[in-house]
Amino acid sequence: MAKALPGGQPTDSDTPHFDGFGAVPGVRPGQRFATRRALAQTGVHRQSIAGIAGRGDRGAESVVLAGTHADDDHGDVIIYTGEGSVDPRRQTHDQQLTRGNAALAASAATGLPVRVTRRIATGPHAGSYRYDGLYRVEDYWSEQGPHGHRVWRFRLVQLPAVEQGEVAQPTPALTAGTQMRERGDRPRSVSSVQRVVRSTATANLVKRMHDYTCQVCGIRLQGATGGYAEAAHIRPLEPPHDGPDAVENVLCLCPNHHVLLDQGMLIINDDLTVVNRADSTLLGRLHETAEHRVDRRHLAHHRVHHGLPTDVTYQA
Amino acid sequence: MAKALPGGQPTDSDTPHFDGFGAVPGVRPGQRFATRRALAQTGVHRQSIAGIAGRGDRGAESVVLAGTHADDDHGDVIIYTGEGSVDPRRQTHDQQLTRGNAALAASAATGLPVRVTRRIATGPHAGSYRYDGLYRVEDYWSEQGPHGHRVWRFRLVQLPAVEQGEVAQPTPALTAGTQMRERGDRPRSVSSVQRVVRSTATANLVKRMHDYTCQVCGIRLQGATGGYAEAAHIRPLEPPHDGPDAVENVLCLCPNHHVLLDQGMLIINDDLTVVNRADSTLLGRLHETAEHRVDRRHLAHHRVHHGLPTDVTYQA
Repeated sequence: MAKALPGGQPTDSDTPHFDGFGAVPGVRPGQRFATRRALAQTGVHRQSIAGIAGRGDRGAESVVLAGTHADDDHGDVIIYTGEGSVDPRRQTHDQQLTRGNAALAASAATGLPVRVTRRIATGPHAGSYRYDGLYRVEDYWSEQGPHGHRVWRFRLVQLPAVEQGEVAQPTPALTAGTQMRERGDRPRSVSSVQRVVRSTATANLVKRMHDYTCQVCGIRLQGATGGYAEAAHIRPLEPPHDGPDAVENVLCLCPNHHVLLDQGMLIINDDLTVVNRADSTLLGRLHETAEHRVDRRHLAHHRVHHGLPTDVTYQA
Repeated sequence: MAKALPGGQPTDSDTPHFDGFGAVPGVRPGQRFATRRALAQTGVHRQSIAGIAGRGDRGAESVVLAGTHADDDHGDVIIYTGEGSVDPRRQTHDQQLTRGNAALAASAATGLPVRVTRRIATGPHAGSYRYDGLYRVEDYWSEQGPHGHRVWRFRLVQLPAVEQGEVAQPTPALTAGTQMRERGDRPRSVSSVQRVVRSTATANLVKRMHDYTCQVCGIRLQGATGGYAEAAHIRPLEPPHDGPDAVENVLCLCPNHHVLLDQGMLIINDDLTVVNRADSTLLGRLHETAEHRVDRRHLAHHRVHHGLPTDVTYQA
């Protein structure tokens, strides 16, 4: 059934469940808008004041970089600071992973694209807004702000041009942040990246050290060509974490526990007790071997990364 | 510690565990070689006759497209036919998922890059070989050959230029098929893509229909922002499968069972009994609801895809 796009145009019948995510038909990256009101009316950013538009259960539809926050803007990579008392001079409480911040966190889990608009600070167009296309929330973490209060930070990475949803393509709203099928006799399906599992030479070594057995639950998945496991870097390789690609920073996990660790739902204490953060149950103790020790500093980094105090371990 | 590269040069100390995968230092895409012997001596393809070089437990290091097989070569995408009685006039038995075929299947699981060399069939350089860079094994499946015998087919997708391992970069052998970290104060770590989890609007709908509960094991992972599940297309969207992005072709699975389904280790019969192919144990029955029915034709396609006869269900 056809639903209304933010812009008002109906979707064609090949695009079910359009829900405000992705490119807005007729709006190209680089297009300028005079006011927040214009951004809202066209559906680029459907919030008149808030910097984050979206829903916590699905993801963030769009963000506006107003230039007033402590955002770390590298163009194609943005370290976006969450909402809630973010001015260092006025921050009086911790930011919470709720509302807009929860929406951005959900985007990391669903892989849905986020529209990014920047407020132009200088030059002839100062004060206006520029839509800069679609980004993906690759990671998020908490940091201690200058006054000791917690801020949430989100790593947004620009999607390739082919995934920016050119209006020339069919169903632009849904092709945004997606990849088309190579052949198209039937209506083309589009997909967004929900998760990318990476590996490294060190990661493959750790997987072999544990014979592809999960260090949390002890399961060993039998794949088509042998054991299957995934390597998790406790302290991520990417900035700002800059974790080392070393065996003491890598765990051999089954995909389920890899997802939970990456989402901060699996907390590992220095004594290697593993706690399920969702219900505070104790899952057991991380399996460590003589040849493969885990660096406790990286475990502490992971706890802080996900909003726990650095000097306190998590109690089941 | 420094190890010898296929080309003979030592790796620098920042590249542990080099194992013959990825770009060969000094060899750029497009470079020609007069003979198979030259290919072998430089380490581009360390087999004098076989088309696939590698190890079943780690992956394929390289393949040579000799132009004699029924390969479907689109340049950046290659449907590569496995080894073992591949000439339709002479195929007298099924190809097995062993040796070179097992190595290519392992590459799909490990994400390690595969060097691709093409034999030049026509023109002034006819008969010579051209190294065409690094590819990823994205998928593989079995088909019935012209004479009713099974052939294994592998979908190789060319890696982006940035991942082709320019010699100018440090540790070229390991940067091949990889992505560099954005910052490099410490020696840069490199990673290869082991797995990409995609989603679609229909997939997200199915996940909500089941409240992110795995249809095989009933587990519901609690992520940071709600339930976490992955959607699996029973019949893949990509050619040559061309499965529909429709609810009856999608399952809501936990990451563990998603991996097993994709690798053909989870067999679902028409009566929805689920069998663990590794040990032929019965895992139970797929959870189906009134609003979400599974199309048995796609289940049959999945069984054939992974080498089971189409008209026979799998016995536990």
